[in-house]
Amino acid sequence: MRFFSDNAASVHPKVMAALAAANGQDTAYDGDALSAQLNGAFSDLFGTDVEAMWVATGTAANSLALAALCQPHQGVICHEEAHIEQDEAGAPGFYTGGAKLMLVQGEGAKVAAETVDRLCAAIRDDVHQVQPAAVSITNASEYGLVYTPDEVAAVSEVCTQRRLGLHMDGARFANAVAMLGCHPADVTWKAGVDVLSFGFVKNGGMGAEALVFFDKDLARETHYRRKRAGHLQSKGRYLAVQILAMLDGDLWLQNARAANHGAQMLAQAAAKRLLYPVEANEVFIKITATEAETLRGAGFDFYDWGEGQARLVTSWNQSAEDIRPLAEAIAAL
Amino acid sequence: MRFFSDNAASVHPKVMAALAAANGQDTAYDGDALSAQLNGAFSDLFGTDVEAMWVATGTAANSLALAALCQPHQGVICHEEAHIEQDEAGAPGFYTGGAKLMLVQGEGAKVAAETVDRLCAAIRDDVHQVQPAAVSITNASEYGLVYTPDEVAAVSEVCTQRRLGLHMDGARFANAVAMLGCHPADVTWKAGVDVLSFGFVKNGGMGAEALVFFDKDLARETHYRRKRAGHLQSKGRYLAVQILAMLDGDLWLQNARAANHGAQMLAQAAAKRLLYPVEANEVFIKITATEAETLRGAGFDFYDWGEGQARLVTSWNQSAEDIRPLAEAIAAL
Amino acid sequence: MRFFSDNAASVHPKVMAALAAANGQDTAYDGDALSAQLNGAFSDLFGTDVEAMWVATGTAANSLALAALCQPHQGVICHEEAHIEQDEAGAPGFYTGGAKLMLVQGEGAKVAAETVDRLCAAIRDDVHQVQPAAVSITNASEYGLVYTPDEVAAVSEVCTQRRLGLHMDGARFANAVAMLGCHPADVTWKAGVDVLSFGFVKNGGMGAEALVFFDKDLARETHYRRKRAGHLQSKGRYLAVQILAMLDGDLWLQNARAANHGAQMLAQAAAKRLLYPVEANEVFIKITATEAETLRGAGFDFYDWGEGQARLVTSWNQSAEDIRPLAEAIAAL
Amino acid sequence: MRFFSDNAASVHPKVMAALAAANGQDTAYDGDALSAQLNGAFSDLFGTDVEAMWVATGTAANSLALAALCQPHQGVICHEEAHIEQDEAGAPGFYTGGAKLMLVQGEGAKVAAETVDRLCAAIRDDVHQVQPAAVSITNASEYGLVYTPDEVAAVSEVCTQRRLGLHMDGARFANAVAMLGCHPADVTWKAGVDVLSFGFVKNGGMGAEALVFFDKDLARETHYRRKRAGHLQSKGRYLAVQILAMLDGDLWLQNARAANHGAQMLAQAAAKRLLYPVEANEVFIKITATEAETLRGAGFDFYDWGEGQARLVTSWNQSAEDIRPLAEAIAAL
Repeated sequence: MRFFSDNAASVHPKVMAALAAANGQDTAYDGDALSAQLNGAFSDLFGTDVEAMWVATGTAANSLALAALCQPHQGVICHEEAHIEQDEAGAPGFYTGGAKLMLVQGEGAKVAAETVDRLCAAIRDDVHQVQPAAVSITNASEYGLVYTPDEVAAVSEVCTQRRLGLHMDGARFANAVAMLGCHPADVTWKAGVDVLSFGFVKNGGMGAEALVFFDKDLARETHYRRKRAGHLQSKGRYLAVQILAMLDGDLWLQNARAANHGAQMLAQAAAKRLLYPVEANEVFIKITATEAETLRGAGFDFYDWGEGQARLVTSWNQSAEDIRPLAEAIAAL
Repeated sequence: MRFFSDNAASVHPKVMAALAAANGQDTAYDGDALSAQLNGAFSDLFGTDVEAMWVATGTAANSLALAALCQPHQGVICHEEAHIEQDEAGAPGFYTGGAKLMLVQGEGAKVAAETVDRLCAAIRDDVHQVQPAAVSITNASEYGLVYTPDEVAAVSEVCTQRRLGLHMDGARFANAVAMLGCHPADVTWKAGVDVLSFGFVKNGGMGAEALVFFDKDLARETHYRRKRAGHLQSKGRYLAVQILAMLDGDLWLQNARAANHGAQMLAQAAAKRLLYPVEANEVFIKITATEAETLRGAGFDFYDWGEGQARLVTSWNQSAEDIRPLAEAIAAL
Repeated sequence: MRFFSDNAASVHPKVMAALAAANGQDTAYDGDALSAQLNGAFSDLFGTDVEAMWVATGTAANSLALAALCQPHQGVICHEEAHIEQDEAGAPGFYTGGAKLMLVQGEGAKVAAETVDRLCAAIRDDVHQVQPAAVSITNASEYGLVYTPDEVAAVSEVCTQRRLGLHMDGARFANAVAMLGCHPADVTWKAGVDVLSFGFVKNGGMGAEALVFFDKDLARETHYRRKRAGHLQSKGRYLAVQILAMLDGDLWLQNARAANHGAQMLAQAAAKRLLYPVEANEVFIKITATEAETLRGAGFDFYDWGEGQARLVTSWNQSAEDIRPLAEAIAAL
Repeated sequence: MRFFSDNAASVHPKVMAALAAANGQDTAYDGDALSAQLNGAFSDLFGTDVEAMWVATGTAANSLALAALCQPHQGVICHEEAHIEQDEAGAPGFYTGGAKLMLVQGEGAKVAAETVDRLCAAIRDDVHQVQPAAVSITNASEYGLVYTPDEVAAVSEVCTQRRLGLHMDGARFANAVAMLGCHPADVTWKAGVDVLSFGFVKNGGMGAEALVFFDKDLARETHYRRKRAGHLQSKGRYLAVQILAMLDGDLWLQNARAANHGAQMLAQAAAKRLLYPVEANEVFIKITATEAETLRGAGFDFYDWGEGQARLVTSWNQSAEDIRPLAEAIAAL
């Protein structure tokens, strides 16, 4: 059983069905009838007028968002363990034309408003130092922690004072909203987010994420940048339809709730081992090499997270029955 | 009926079936069992040891290839009507870090060996002028003309003398091979091509092209660049499986033959109107505004190509019955 | 005697004297008293409020100007023989982050308003084609031709209609103004120029050009970009003082007049050989290989300009006596 | 009296004299007789065959060096307080095409071999993480500490094992060599340095630094990159002559010894206040705001270095008589 990554999970049957149903002729690129529905669908979901576009990957979504917020000679403030810093092969540097990621620390890979403010205050306002232009936060964070609307708003307040844009990497946005139980607007534009990378691939999609611009001015040039990055797929309708299927009937929320529920089962079983509170679908635990071997021997697959630590990720397609064996195996260690 | 673009065509049922059959759990990115088959499948197809990787778009494939061949301060020689120059929004400049496309002319958007040689000879060998590092040719060309193995070999000979790499943009490679009736090796590595963008999307795929490195050294760093460009999809197996389905039983060739056949039907009907010989699945014709209106009024969709000219593109899924009405309508003009 | 390039000429004694006089302690970078005078000096010269900054080279000045006018995914329209296209090693691509130079033709390397308009009209307004953001013209042009205020204004009018910025490469701006006999304002901001690369090095300076922003908004970010390009010299006062010495008593105009006068002497001697009217300090002539050999044998140094053509450049420090021998030698061919 | 920066110091009379003596006609760019002497002069100085080129600034020298060592998708390991990270406005990101500075800590802004090794060991060898390609160390460091030949060799050994290039930022290389009393070869190529930014501007020059390639293969493409960055000055001979004057009779060493001596005088006076050992020409001291005010009231100029700390920099042109008043004022606090 795989707890290695939610990227390893299958595609939701409704997404597969939508792809099959969409197979036919239509205008290329994003000139088709399905792509045309995205702005409306996301505007409805968020209760405000947004501009949305599909891209194949979270890395592309994040990087396009940062390029829209930040000139090449500027910087983006993010957590030192953020995905954009650690796991995207320097994509933000590529897309922004060499802008600098300005790293801050924070418990559980979360960025606190005060930390952003302190970093900004320490930067000399001269041409020798890179000046920040944006902040990027990840919700849920790399350690599966969730920003509340108030926490996002606090960061946003600093952004406003410091004239910084605010990007949210929402690779696991669905899991965050599912946990918060709030309206998706509350933790995004109502809290000051300018642009959101809204992830679907880890949550049942195949190869389509959405870039949602609450600040629509940022979207205009991004259309050019997406094409220039080779991300304007010629049969874009097959990306649009995946996203529409995920939005339909709140499938994105249902899937996230399922994954979160699995994580909670593991969290209970591993209560004394937890490195972080479990708020989304990731469980970080203390575990000895011998114990890890035991679990792997029993057929459970997961990621070592440095010495004596492991990461377990649950997925939308894992039922309570799927999770239980691992929960019991952990409890039995 | 759509003759606007082969990008508008549907996805081949065998590709859809393969996607459905592949739906399940596997390792993320390109660590899965299907992606692992690509090198072997393309090595078999080309009869030599190659390294192949999937990307979502031809623009990404072309740009990654050029970035592998060309440093930021160098240049790539291509036709002034090449797709990389005209229709990729500056993607080569983005991926190469600002390298220059050095434009040449040539009938039907084909690049002749002598033209490349003449351009190189005219460049002063000093630091003030950008020095070329590669040549990119498109087979079939933007006007649907096909390079023969000998023509490619002639360009390659100049490349060798001038120490330039050779890239082939094969967005319609299948159509070219179908027309030539040669082995795919003949018009690529045996003729000196270092890296090929092998297109599948226009030919029945959904969202997967292949980048085939005959010079495997070029592939090594491209793995990093692909990720850095946001093109390493986390569920890459769904790209791999499309390509494998296209290769299986030479579906790529069958589809291309069908599209080419449709183009020949139109070519016959429009024999006196042809701007270029019809060698692949594109037909460029002289047509008055009134005639164009007549065709559109009859339900035929196509692209105006400057004043008094039109481009008709046939697709893999258009049968003789599908083509006949347009052929007759053109003949009746 | 050297007619190879005005870059080969010596530094004017007044510039040398000013450097010597300035030698002493002051604040680093551009925080010194001399650098602080630049905005005022150029505002006085141009009769309007400008922002000016020193850079070491014309290539840096041009590239910084273009980067201020053009985003990485956009383009700059220029003549196909412009210095930025032909002789700056791809610097505009580097500074702009990969923007495209969009080439036009025109007699004597001059860009006509209609040509710009026609190019713009031919570009599809979609994301597949690079959209232009600026026009760059060179005054005097690469062939020593001068744009009149009316000609610049005509280009500017198209720029306004098409929402393009307008840059003037003035490597030989002094020679152009000297020839026109107009106020420098007439051929720049009054004719719609947004930013000017004002050359001094070819005209008696040592290593300082000025970047003059008539649109001061463009200057703000350029301060950061200049530093980021390694062009904010730590002893910037030695650049500022060169420029101030060149402006003092209109030394820049006197020097340019001297160089232009020398060119006129050669033009008269070579009247039947002229490839272009001689309007600045460059003389392009038809000449056989044997004739060229004769001149070189007599000790005259110059640049071959393709087959059967030569370029002769006069400099600020060449008196009538210095020019006469070459004039006579040409006449005697 | 200025202790703010050695960049504020005047130009050495011998450099001024050399500039005056060099004034005359010669070939443009680096085709002149003086530039042609650089390779020989530095090869003599270092006792090995090197390739050297002038550039105007240390930022340009450093960035060109890093671009030669590092592809856009790779990284450069440096201290978190290195000049390239803190004070060059993101120039390394610009020149390398977006490569990442990978930061390490270390006492006094020095990078220890073990720290580099540990960082490398922690990077996963996959395409998701940026892979380092080079290490950059600064000698003397940002806090005026000097690397011994053994320390450099230790870093170099890790570089060899990890296949990393090694760059030395020698903005104050002269001060380091003066302190070490070793041959300049000992602390550079004999200790494994591939390329050195050899600073002259802070040490009596006007606007010329040298980029010295011990690995001559790296120099080849740098010639193109220098031009592309607008750093190939058209009257390059005035840069070459400055450097030759600084090398002549070891003026660079004499000047550095003078500056170092001044720093030692301050170090003795401030012995109890020192934040770091004083090894070059920078003195970092603990000082209260009131004390700082006292010194400034007495006419001494210096840089606040965070709260309760100050940086005093001595220059080549400050004699013992120039330093004594500040030394006494500090002692008297």
